[in-house]
Amino acid sequence: MTYCVAMRLAEGLVFASDSRTNAGFDKISTFRKMHFFRQPGTGSESQGGERELVILSAGNLATSQSVISLLEKRCGTDQANLLDTPSMFESAELVGQTMREVIQRDKPEGKDSRVDFSCSMILGGQIRGESPRLFNIYTEGNFIEATRETPYFQIGESKYGKPILDRIMNFETPLERAYQCALISFDSTMKSNLSVGMPLDVAIYRNDALKPCTFEQVDEHNDYFHQLRAQWHQGIQTLFNELDPPTIC
Amino acid sequence: MTYCVAMRLAEGLVFASDSRTNAGFDKISTFRKMHFFRQPGTGSESQGGERELVILSAGNLATSQSVISLLEKRCGTDQANLLDTPSMFESAELVGQTMREVIQRDKPEGKDSRVDFSCSMILGGQIRGESPRLFNIYTEGNFIEATRETPYFQIGESKYGKPILDRIMNFETPLERAYQCALISFDSTMKSNLSVGMPLDVAIYRNDALKPCTFEQVDEHNDYFHQLRAQWHQGIQTLFNELDPPTIC
Repeated sequence: MTYCVAMRLAEGLVFASDSRTNAGFDKISTFRKMHFFRQPGTGSESQGGERELVILSAGNLATSQSVISLLEKRCGTDQANLLDTPSMFESAELVGQTMREVIQRDKPEGKDSRVDFSCSMILGGQIRGESPRLFNIYTEGNFIEATRETPYFQIGESKYGKPILDRIMNFETPLERAYQCALISFDSTMKSNLSVGMPLDVAIYRNDALKPCTFEQVDEHNDYFHQLRAQWHQGIQTLFNELDPPTIC
Repeated sequence: MTYCVAMRLAEGLVFASDSRTNAGFDKISTFRKMHFFRQPGTGSESQGGERELVILSAGNLATSQSVISLLEKRCGTDQANLLDTPSMFESAELVGQTMREVIQRDKPEGKDSRVDFSCSMILGGQIRGESPRLFNIYTEGNFIEATRETPYFQIGESKYGKPILDRIMNFETPLERAYQCALISFDSTMKSNLSVGMPLDVAIYRNDALKPCTFEQVDEHNDYFHQLRAQWHQGIQTLFNELDPPTIC
């Protein structure tokens, strides 16, 4: 299983993903689910680059790895590729098309397979000349875009970590708050589902930076995550203990 | 959809269920999912009755209604019935057996049906001479029992409301605290899933009471629930805002 969340906020974008994959309880591996496509600038460093794109992937690992490999392999060639798309919208189209291509390649023709070849992806980022945008791309290759009213997307094991996002997040949430909220959402998910596991990849992109995201890999030894989860857990206990008592009992 | 939760704690049992059923977004109805089987005492009122049993149901409504109807119809007859079982264990066996009977009756023989006839149930309560016990009965009719280490069961749409239970509940949690925790768990679930809805049924059984549970129907006009959800929501915001800031951004 997998859990990924991405947010498009007033100040920029936040991405987070776990790194556990499993095919049964005794076939557990670590695979990164966060992938970057970036075009360094040709001018001075202060001008930044031309694009910064992030893809998060969930679902069948063979499918999602092939999609990422094909997208990477085509960069810098004459084929349509993610370093050459004129807009984020066309980047989402290209990712969706590549997902269809891989699933069609692998799925046995004309008969039902017991294997689920589906995958889903989140694509976010910025291309010079456009505002940052964020897309949720379904296994069918079609997609939806995040808006001010619905500023975040989740893929994979999304339910355990959704209530805290719903209570805290909105478009105006500052990036560092969104980062904290994403970590708490992962903490709740990892407590309930063994198939979502550390290390976590977190990337933060500030509007118009057009340079590599601030990236952090949060593993078991990350002091801030330990402190945050302890503070949250203790805070929830205290909050609960201070609730007005019910009259029923 | 449905969400039900039940807990077996040091002081007694807590049951809670929503009342929304749906077959598509425009076919929404209200059906109770909490059912009581009780045997009034023959002695004085202070002695209490002989048994108090509660069943929560989720899954196919035609299946679960038939199961409850059959269990009710057989009470007071010569057939094995829930007012006559010598123990909670045999009560769970009887419920499981009745579930198998109904599913076998309805499921087209020898061919796969597109309809999902499955249901699941939680049975809890006390029969004089035994301690209170709590069982989670699967659609196959087999079941597991709650223990000190795993004091609660959920059926139906369980994921959104699980993190708060995991953070708060343990075997020693007092009944009124468990009641509050169940309500918060429902609040989180109803925020995220439209197919779980009010009114909620809540029943509280104190060890060895052997009389009807304290029962409450929590609807949109319930002042305590309004106050609790507002206090919780506000408390979560405050707790979140007081977290130590991260160093990443």
